[in-house]
Amino acid sequence: MAPRYAPSLWSRLPPVALLLEVIFIVLFAFFVEIEELKDKKNQEFLYFYAIFQDVHVMVFLGFGFVSAFLVRYGFSGVGFGLLVAAMVVQWATFINAFLPSFYFSHFNWPVHINLNSLAEAELCAASALVAMGAVHGKTNPTQLLLFGLLEVTGFVVTQKLMDTLFKSGRIYATMQMYVFGALFGVMTSWVLYRSDAEPRHEKEKFDSKTGLFAMLGLLFLWMFWPSMNFMQVKDIRVVYSTYLAQAVSAVTAMAVSVLSSPKGKINLVHVQGASLAGGVAIGAARTVHDPWVAMVIGMCAGLLSALGYRYMKDHMLFAFECHDTCSVLSVYAIPGILGTFGHLILQLTSTDDLTIAIRFAVHFICVVFISISMSLVTGSITGFLLKLKFWKPQQDRKCFDDQAFWEFPHLAVHK
Amino acid sequence: MAPRYAPSLWSRLPPVALLLEVIFIVLFAFFVEIEELKDKKNQEFLYFYAIFQDVHVMVFLGFGFVSAFLVRYGFSGVGFGLLVAAMVVQWATFINAFLPSFYFSHFNWPVHINLNSLAEAELCAASALVAMGAVHGKTNPTQLLLFGLLEVTGFVVTQKLMDTLFKSGRIYATMQMYVFGALFGVMTSWVLYRSDAEPRHEKEKFDSKTGLFAMLGLLFLWMFWPSMNFMQVKDIRVVYSTYLAQAVSAVTAMAVSVLSSPKGKINLVHVQGASLAGGVAIGAARTVHDPWVAMVIGMCAGLLSALGYRYMKDHMLFAFECHDTCSVLSVYAIPGILGTFGHLILQLTSTDDLTIAIRFAVHFICVVFISISMSLVTGSITGFLLKLKFWKPQQDRKCFDDQAFWEFPHLAVHK
Amino acid sequence: MAPRYAPSLWSRLPPVALLLEVIFIVLFAFFVEIEELKDKKNQEFLYFYAIFQDVHVMVFLGFGFVSAFLVRYGFSGVGFGLLVAAMVVQWATFINAFLPSFYFSHFNWPVHINLNSLAEAELCAASALVAMGAVHGKTNPTQLLLFGLLEVTGFVVTQKLMDTLFKSGRIYATMQMYVFGALFGVMTSWVLYRSDAEPRHEKEKFDSKTGLFAMLGLLFLWMFWPSMNFMQVKDIRVVYSTYLAQAVSAVTAMAVSVLSSPKGKINLVHVQGASLAGGVAIGAARTVHDPWVAMVIGMCAGLLSALGYRYMKDHMLFAFECHDTCSVLSVYAIPGILGTFGHLILQLTSTDDLTIAIRFAVHFICVVFISISMSLVTGSITGFLLKLKFWKPQQDRKCFDDQAFWEFPHLAVHK
Repeated sequence: MAPRYAPSLWSRLPPVALLLEVIFIVLFAFFVEIEELKDKKNQEFLYFYAIFQDVHVMVFLGFGFVSAFLVRYGFSGVGFGLLVAAMVVQWATFINAFLPSFYFSHFNWPVHINLNSLAEAELCAASALVAMGAVHGKTNPTQLLLFGLLEVTGFVVTQKLMDTLFKSGRIYATMQMYVFGALFGVMTSWVLYRSDAEPRHEKEKFDSKTGLFAMLGLLFLWMFWPSMNFMQVKDIRVVYSTYLAQAVSAVTAMAVSVLSSPKGKINLVHVQGASLAGGVAIGAARTVHDPWVAMVIGMCAGLLSALGYRYMKDHMLFAFECHDTCSVLSVYAIPGILGTFGHLILQLTSTDDLTIAIRFAVHFICVVFISISMSLVTGSITGFLLKLKFWKPQQDRKCFDDQAFWEFPHLAVHK
Repeated sequence: MAPRYAPSLWSRLPPVALLLEVIFIVLFAFFVEIEELKDKKNQEFLYFYAIFQDVHVMVFLGFGFVSAFLVRYGFSGVGFGLLVAAMVVQWATFINAFLPSFYFSHFNWPVHINLNSLAEAELCAASALVAMGAVHGKTNPTQLLLFGLLEVTGFVVTQKLMDTLFKSGRIYATMQMYVFGALFGVMTSWVLYRSDAEPRHEKEKFDSKTGLFAMLGLLFLWMFWPSMNFMQVKDIRVVYSTYLAQAVSAVTAMAVSVLSSPKGKINLVHVQGASLAGGVAIGAARTVHDPWVAMVIGMCAGLLSALGYRYMKDHMLFAFECHDTCSVLSVYAIPGILGTFGHLILQLTSTDDLTIAIRFAVHFICVVFISISMSLVTGSITGFLLKLKFWKPQQDRKCFDDQAFWEFPHLAVHK
Repeated sequence: MAPRYAPSLWSRLPPVALLLEVIFIVLFAFFVEIEELKDKKNQEFLYFYAIFQDVHVMVFLGFGFVSAFLVRYGFSGVGFGLLVAAMVVQWATFINAFLPSFYFSHFNWPVHINLNSLAEAELCAASALVAMGAVHGKTNPTQLLLFGLLEVTGFVVTQKLMDTLFKSGRIYATMQMYVFGALFGVMTSWVLYRSDAEPRHEKEKFDSKTGLFAMLGLLFLWMFWPSMNFMQVKDIRVVYSTYLAQAVSAVTAMAVSVLSSPKGKINLVHVQGASLAGGVAIGAARTVHDPWVAMVIGMCAGLLSALGYRYMKDHMLFAFECHDTCSVLSVYAIPGILGTFGHLILQLTSTDDLTIAIRFAVHFICVVFISISMSLVTGSITGFLLKLKFWKPQQDRKCFDDQAFWEFPHLAVHK
């Protein structure tokens, strides 16, 4: 391997991907069936299909294009997003249904594929894509593939653990999706830190076109986030509160981006991240029924997220040697935790009985604590697994660069 | 302020945006509630949600990307579209419900947020975004924010005035949306005319990539226009007639663009504008039940719009010193008026009684006249308000340029 | 006509397009009506509207942007896609309803426009756009317009012929859509082969931005393919099997692209084509009810398609002098035939009776044979019609180049 080129993907990506596919096919052959629908359910299907498709667009297009802002990383951002998401939904469909039957020792075989199970799988994939935001550009596709599968496994195991420990553990799934995903990604990125790379990579910037591609991805996430929250909370009011929170969050993000800029200019990538914060926070807060509360949560989320993007990303890099490519800590983790505490406060204020309130608060803090611990632990383990030279990561100079992985025929075949 | 740089947004945009947000939150806290849904309505919600999302995509993605064709104005076109739309939907949700209760002096407090009220708010936002097309590139985001809020206020006041004056005033809402919006924008642009700027700005052009981004925005508008018309007219037949009119209008636009070009070539931006004309005209005409009538309206709208784009834009600039960035006059105002007269003719031909026909025609001309007058008056007032140096508009040289407002890290942080 | 410029579109495109539009309007005035809906159907409309819109996005946005990967052909790929699709849906709406009444000699006048008939028309348009993939870049828009109309005519005639010959001919519509379209396009491209052009045109490449635009188009096709298959098969299980097959096909495509590359890199355009293969094959196979079967079909389709893209395109060019711009043979024809044989095998294995099995197989091979023959014959005829100098095709040097057809104001109006 000449030193000028990135290691070929030949010997790692195809064997891993194809082997996993064969394993999945065998598992599906034994354990999975497509649900046959009755007429009544048919109608229900058509109700929810439009909402499912919104989430489908978010997972496969939105997250991919949002990470295409890096000037030389467009193909990888979008392409590896597709690769990982396509792999993860298959795996998640399986373990999502398989794990609980395993836990509760009655094996409800076979697993049924329906719109619900696919929707659950897409939410798991969303969690993996959130986490991927932290490691983009510093890993090769084989690593990303394993990263995605391990993240989803950790995420599903944590969720099922909550279900087993706490009866109402389920309602924290949304919070976990963002907070678990983001912290998992950040931990992996911390373990994978390349001390020889320059602190700020010269290719880690955007230009006037990649910014627009990222804006496209952001808009699809932003516009369809109410559908994603609805799919998780299953209460129509969450659509309205998400809608309002996101509108406020987008305006706040732009104002704060100007305020925190020495030259009084807007940073497109900061605005993109912080505009999503409102939807993330409302998803984690779940039961916001007053519009003004939703708007206040959106405002705080936008504010914290924009400030986090501006100051925390570099701080994390220099103080902790942790590089967070898409600043998922500011975009998902902080608003997620903010929303979760919003949920706690809303629950406490609606209760008169002090005992219940205290029990709820304790229970609540346990859930958050366990989620965060699980994500930190599983994230670090994943990081150590991916650090192996066996996966042939690209050199430091080839980080954030499509040319390590993609053919550019206009260079090779010129005439 | 060094003469080379555009004025910083620091001292105007954040205070205005955040102050407005705080005011909105207070208003929402006192006057607005999220509607609780019964089971039956739940189902209805899911019916209309897909259509609502179509319009949502049009408002937040379509209009933004369509105005991203200017070679250095992509971030601003899309970003300020998001900023203004996010602000305007909040304000429109409020005044849309508040104003009628004010008029009719019984105060039906509180205002309820549901899919209907959000849909109304999005249509108001669409009107503001139509108007913004005329002033893009010559205003800063603070001005655009105020412009959007004033446009929507004028639009809603005009609509409510119609409701009060004429019983059937409501049915002209679609026409008003386009015609009011476009004329309002053009008037503001006329008042804001910068006589020192070159008649045709060197940055006012597109390139092979920004043209594709604009095409993307156009396609989302074009594909979802039937949903927008359905949302306003609430008759399924309008979906089919919009569909046909738009197909004809797109073909006609391309043919006319070739015909009117000295070299026999197609102008992408002209085609984009004129392809929408069919949908606009059918929306204004409302009750087109014969497919061929829809197709004829689409053809005429595409024809007028393409010719208007080719000849009228420059004419307006040189003869009236009125600069219309996205040529909203050709894309929305002319097809809107055409469609409205189509509606008049269709109504007259379906009536046998001459007295009724004359009364209808008089009533109709009053509505159009009042709408146009209101838009011209409110547009000029807005123009004079925005002309104040207080808003710190960019210099002439910084028009149509993202660098006046957006950070470009690849210039600043280059290693 | 100076030798340096491409022939002007002036004398051909506008007359042809406007004349056709006038003919369509006259036909629609006499034979077509918009269906009036009862309340019950109203509800049904709203069910299917979201699925219809998915297909609408595929036809008008997806196919257009997928063919925008050529570095200088973005405007043409997207713009002519819109032009042809807008024209074809009108024509298909008409002949789709007109032809059967003609066949069965009872003339059920008038033709009704409803969501169903528009959906059928969109599927015909999809077939034309599939075919267009083979001739992109080597034809002018007038030729493309005629090409689209002839393809759809051939496609509808073939379908109706099947309906008449075999009772169950209808169920092969999906297979025909892809196989007929692709082979039709390839035949036309073969007849139109320009022996003087270089075997591989210097403009036939993509860059880092056009690749992303094509990725956007691909993702919309990929994400909404389950809706397209559902619309054709009308069984919800096809949504799930398409979903799974596509996921496997995307992963396989990426792995095979690496395996078949000497440097172990991924080719974005190959991956785009091969990711679709899973959906195509499942559409053609129709009744796949086991998830693992769907996944195996998706894997084989992705494998064959990626290999076909890598090796067959050049082979076809050098051995048969047939240039296939978007490699539709690998993307649609091969997976389509694969899926069709999958359907045959699935049917045969589910039958015990040998006689029925043999009859089915014979019947089946007849259908495939007739479809392929029809597409080869009609495709060649179309090729000879389009080869006429009368249509003023661009010179060889102007192939794959937007500048032959589109105004680029930034070159002409510079200041």
